[in-house]
Amino acid sequence: MSFIDQLKTAWHKYNSLVCVGLDGDLKKLPASVRDKELPLFEFNRQIIDQTAEHCCCYKPQIAYYAAYAAEGQLEQTIAYIKDNYPQHPVILDAKRGDIGATAGMYALEAFSRYAADAVTVNPYMGGDTLQPFLDFADKGVVVLCRTSNEGSAEFQALDCEGSSLAHRVARQSLIWNKNGNIMLVTGATFPAEIGEIRKIVGDMPLLVPGVGAQGGALRAVLENGLTADKMGLMINSSRGIIYASSGDDFAQAAGEAASLLKTQINAVRDSL
Amino acid sequence: MSFIDQLKTAWHKYNSLVCVGLDGDLKKLPASVRDKELPLFEFNRQIIDQTAEHCCCYKPQIAYYAAYAAEGQLEQTIAYIKDNYPQHPVILDAKRGDIGATAGMYALEAFSRYAADAVTVNPYMGGDTLQPFLDFADKGVVVLCRTSNEGSAEFQALDCEGSSLAHRVARQSLIWNKNGNIMLVTGATFPAEIGEIRKIVGDMPLLVPGVGAQGGALRAVLENGLTADKMGLMINSSRGIIYASSGDDFAQAAGEAASLLKTQINAVRDSL
Repeated sequence: MSFIDQLKTAWHKYNSLVCVGLDGDLKKLPASVRDKELPLFEFNRQIIDQTAEHCCCYKPQIAYYAAYAAEGQLEQTIAYIKDNYPQHPVILDAKRGDIGATAGMYALEAFSRYAADAVTVNPYMGGDTLQPFLDFADKGVVVLCRTSNEGSAEFQALDCEGSSLAHRVARQSLIWNKNGNIMLVTGATFPAEIGEIRKIVGDMPLLVPGVGAQGGALRAVLENGLTADKMGLMINSSRGIIYASSGDDFAQAAGEAASLLKTQINAVRDSL
Repeated sequence: MSFIDQLKTAWHKYNSLVCVGLDGDLKKLPASVRDKELPLFEFNRQIIDQTAEHCCCYKPQIAYYAAYAAEGQLEQTIAYIKDNYPQHPVILDAKRGDIGATAGMYALEAFSRYAADAVTVNPYMGGDTLQPFLDFADKGVVVLCRTSNEGSAEFQALDCEGSSLAHRVARQSLIWNKNGNIMLVTGATFPAEIGEIRKIVGDMPLLVPGVGAQGGALRAVLENGLTADKMGLMINSSRGIIYASSGDDFAQAAGEAASLLKTQINAVRDSL
């Protein structure tokens, strides 16, 4: 099944638009897992078990593993999801991008080595550099469009020959999308932009980081970003879920935080 | 010593602007190293020994290691350079970029885990996302500006409120450069652009990929990119050097290719 079909199935089965970001920092783990042989994997495993019924997908952020030479625990985390929760697709958040041959290597990293179902990529170098990812027709390719950080306007909001750089990326993504496997990153911190981008890309799924710790407002995100069938979004929360408690009840607290976010999202969806 | 000072020292000591790209593909290694326990490291070690006197720096491309779960061999390669050729700085080509906390993890990956002297980064998300890298004042931060791929114009050449996106990145880099540790990537395939960017950034070092396999013309690169003292460039060659021979004489051939490129560059420098 393609990533997009897998995502749509999970949206309906779990009645959830929540994406759980697995960005655990080795230096911030609760005491009960900190001294384990595979602390990041153990932390993730417990969180996955508690959040699976409340989310539609997982998004591990590779930098948190790479910083500590813990790629093996990232591999194990993804394998654990595939073995135990095969209906939840996994988006590897890596924001890769490079010229052809090298992009091909990054595509192998994401899709072959880690067996991720989707990967985030950076469009700065141009569509030709995204092609090696897009050629994996059953995999998802999530292109940075308007990011959630405060400084994203520096380039993304520039007026580039009649429309902002972010809107140009959105429009180009329609041209690149021959395999129907593109999605875009649109930060929760700029909900009006989510609305503009939604108008450009129709029903294309959007990955929305920045609710919770980064302060994005949920109602405005949903009003602007939902598709006509009240779907179309992967609303990511990382720190708000995985660090819901710093104690040994972290996994239970993560489950409750994911459940609460799902409920809050669905309450707004029902009201629209 | 800071990266920039280390680079300037190496430029003079080896009388070379050549950067050797260590992008060996595990599937394309010569027979004599293919079956070794650490084939990429062995390949690199032999190439480094033969090229060191002809180049000013090394640039391993992390994707080639990550695709095959060979990060350990990348660590060993960098350690080998530091142990045996400490005057050659190492640029980790990773093209990283992400919001603050995550960018901090990528900075740890490059500068702490791998102990690289510099890293390549992607500016799409804005200057705030580069700050965690720039805060390592003694390390180099090489920002993508105008890349060497054919499709780089798709966004980088757009007219963004009066100047191209690439030129805006160049101008912003002057503002971000409080620690004096920024450099830019400017592809050899667009030498006139190198000239425009040189005018914007003064003596800032430029990393120039795309000579050789990608077809960039050496004379035009040098005419446009050299600083007044005929320095200022790191001219990268990867495939042209590491695959100069596909036989068991690959390392000797790599040394000869690096030497030839150095000689060709210096002949043009002398003629200007």
